[in-house]
Amino acid sequence: MPDTPSDTFPVTQRSRIRRAHQRGSYVRDDVYAVIDASPLCHVGYAIDGEPYVTPTIHWREGDVLYWHGSAASRFLESVVGARACVTCSMMDGYVMARSAFSHSVNYRSAMAFGVAELVDDPDHAADALRRFVEGLFPGRWNSLRPMTRQELKATSVLKMTIEEAAVKVRDAPPGDPQEADVPVWAGVIPMETRMGAPVPAPELPKETPFPEELARLIASGRLR
Amino acid sequence: MPDTPSDTFPVTQRSRIRRAHQRGSYVRDDVYAVIDASPLCHVGYAIDGEPYVTPTIHWREGDVLYWHGSAASRFLESVVGARACVTCSMMDGYVMARSAFSHSVNYRSAMAFGVAELVDDPDHAADALRRFVEGLFPGRWNSLRPMTRQELKATSVLKMTIEEAAVKVRDAPPGDPQEADVPVWAGVIPMETRMGAPVPAPELPKETPFPEELARLIASGRLR
Repeated sequence: MPDTPSDTFPVTQRSRIRRAHQRGSYVRDDVYAVIDASPLCHVGYAIDGEPYVTPTIHWREGDVLYWHGSAASRFLESVVGARACVTCSMMDGYVMARSAFSHSVNYRSAMAFGVAELVDDPDHAADALRRFVEGLFPGRWNSLRPMTRQELKATSVLKMTIEEAAVKVRDAPPGDPQEADVPVWAGVIPMETRMGAPVPAPELPKETPFPEELARLIASGRLR
Repeated sequence: MPDTPSDTFPVTQRSRIRRAHQRGSYVRDDVYAVIDASPLCHVGYAIDGEPYVTPTIHWREGDVLYWHGSAASRFLESVVGARACVTCSMMDGYVMARSAFSHSVNYRSAMAFGVAELVDDPDHAADALRRFVEGLFPGRWNSLRPMTRQELKATSVLKMTIEEAAVKVRDAPPGDPQEADVPVWAGVIPMETRMGAPVPAPELPKETPFPEELARLIASGRLR
């Protein structure tokens, strides 16, 4: 792709298809920012021409997205080798305008395309899972009871190299300031997702300290 | 479907495919509860065998899901008549266990299957849009500048009759109480999405009151 600067994903029919009339970006860092901020993603597959959309927790290393599931899942098995569309979306607010037509939402959404592959090397899979947990909760992996071979065997790690991707963001007041004479409230009702006060497991020994790293994560307002 | 009680969706290969080893429900009211609580959905289509997953705001009337978009969107145009999978997911918390394997998330997710259709009768489309706005923000429609014929023409309303659907919910402490002797904090870090303080549009006349219905909605903690 000699005409595509390396800091953007290629612009194709596939990644462009839903972006008519909308501001978007193919810049890798813009795409990554949304993927990395989103606590979950929705993975879409077409199996025998039927669409399936499943939510899951993803993680990313460079251009590679990872997710995982039960090795016993016939569904995960059936998607290995299939084309996938991974979409990460966060809703940031309702945009209340003067006309129904100008109502909107503020949001961030990234859409990435590629092929779902199984990470079949157990060492690679184990390492990916460790980076998944550490990426979410720094310091946690080493505090846990070590993963057993059995557990690793029961877990399928999937990955998808991002071939194409686009991000769309709306972060603005209502788009109809010219209608300010309509006597109705207009503006944005922000929407925010936060982590709340931790709820200890019922059987947790009372003296067990809450990890500082988790406390910092919660306080930061980030979701991962 | 004489053997299917009318309060559940049919259990098929399609709706069952990802539910191995997981608690789920096909009960209509359970499915509706998740669909109706979720501020957005992800719609998946397969176009020429390629999966696409796009976020949007949905609304529901009985077994019919609605969403909308720009009539100029080649994407929306291309999905009319296509099979669709609409998934609504809310993440309710991180479940922190003693092993990486037992880490999980609390969540609610509904997955519905059907065929995307265009609402091509303009009166039906206008009425659906009114019910969309009123469903989100009771009382708002009549306070707005009326929708023009032009605006209605520029809006495509899509609908999908739910043929099959399933819902999955996890709402529980960590699943490994037998490992309580592992010296690490275990429990749930709840995640909650809330609406925040409204931000008036810059040009909004200062004396414009904030609608009581919206204030009540924000205070209720519901997201729609």
